[in-house]
Amino acid sequence: MVSRVKIRELSDVTGVTVATLKYYLREGLLHGGAATAVNQADYDESHVRRVRLVRALLQLGRLSIADAQLVLAAVDDDSIAIHDAFAVAQDAMVPARDRSGPQYAAALDEVVAFVRRHRLQVRPDAHVLEMLADAVVTMDDLGFSDALGTPRLASFDGLLEMALPIAEFEVASTRDDITRAEQMEYTVIGTITFEVAYAALRRMALEHASAIRFGSRRKPRRTD
Amino acid sequence: MVSRVKIRELSDVTGVTVATLKYYLREGLLHGGAATAVNQADYDESHVRRVRLVRALLQLGRLSIADAQLVLAAVDDDSIAIHDAFAVAQDAMVPARDRSGPQYAAALDEVVAFVRRHRLQVRPDAHVLEMLADAVVTMDDLGFSDALGTPRLASFDGLLEMALPIAEFEVASTRDDITRAEQMEYTVIGTITFEVAYAALRRMALEHASAIRFGSRRKPRRTD
Repeated sequence: MVSRVKIRELSDVTGVTVATLKYYLREGLLHGGAATAVNQADYDESHVRRVRLVRALLQLGRLSIADAQLVLAAVDDDSIAIHDAFAVAQDAMVPARDRSGPQYAAALDEVVAFVRRHRLQVRPDAHVLEMLADAVVTMDDLGFSDALGTPRLASFDGLLEMALPIAEFEVASTRDDITRAEQMEYTVIGTITFEVAYAALRRMALEHASAIRFGSRRKPRRTD
Repeated sequence: MVSRVKIRELSDVTGVTVATLKYYLREGLLHGGAATAVNQADYDESHVRRVRLVRALLQLGRLSIADAQLVLAAVDDDSIAIHDAFAVAQDAMVPARDRSGPQYAAALDEVVAFVRRHRLQVRPDAHVLEMLADAVVTMDDLGFSDALGTPRLASFDGLLEMALPIAEFEVASTRDDITRAEQMEYTVIGTITFEVAYAALRRMALEHASAIRFGSRRKPRRTD
């Protein structure tokens, strides 16, 4: 537990340089410490935690500063109901990009139909729909769907069926004995960390499957 | 099908600006067209396809220029066996970052033990191990594992069990009647697009589960 330390020690504890901490302060990503003198302030456990959250958003989640500010505002604003704050945070976690053109519009229609068919309680204007449409456009561009020899929507059905019980378990595991801000933090961190973790596990599975099909076909090493 | 077009038309077909195409050419991400006069060249279907692949790497995959160059070199170099090329591409798809310090080393040890325990044929120095360790460090930093009330490794076991059959199916679906370069392209695009697609589907599942737990509990709209 950290109580009332200088910025130098906050840097030591979090592994984030003093220059970067000052940048976080200037950008409003980190709340100020308790002023003790001109240009002197004390920081506490809340700052340690926030620095780690900011780092997770920027590095692991690769959010822009502007999007990280949106997420943190939703975490901090007690007047926003938790489910609405969740929506703000989810939207900010989808990178902005040019999504004009008929090809993108068709992909988005396909995604909207998918959401309806599964009767998902997802906002019709949720940015995550655009994220899935991005993937669909790229699959179409490169003829990937055909190559896989299976209808794309069938594989999306299968992936969603896997994701739903995990999401339900994850949301159900949210503890009730923590503050709203902590609940929001967990939601954001859970979204980002499990996304990276699952992507990594899937890539490991791909390398394993590729080794078996294209590699030297050596036996896996025994681990005893 | 596009045959022998000017850069202006290549831009129209792909939706990538001429300035960006010239940038791709300068960076070696796109091979030159057939020269027809000073500062004039013709482009063909191979250029259309490559532009789309580059855009997928940079935008959807969010790779750096340097990492995209590595991936494309592995796609293009016929002298690299396909499984080795796959490894180069996979490594380039993991973002570089500072991974010093004892906390990270401990997380990496945990990941290596996980790979051994599952007897995965994943290279011991594969960058994807670092990617999973990144997620583990952030989970530890923010006390996420405890909050979820379930051991982290147990959830990783479950996620890997889901990923393995999908990866096997995906790798098994790689057609034999296409060129090595095409096989590599599919591998790279498959990794990126399905990763984004699955992440989007998981986020939809989270929003759905959150709506049921924290939202207005309205019935999903009927779709008939």
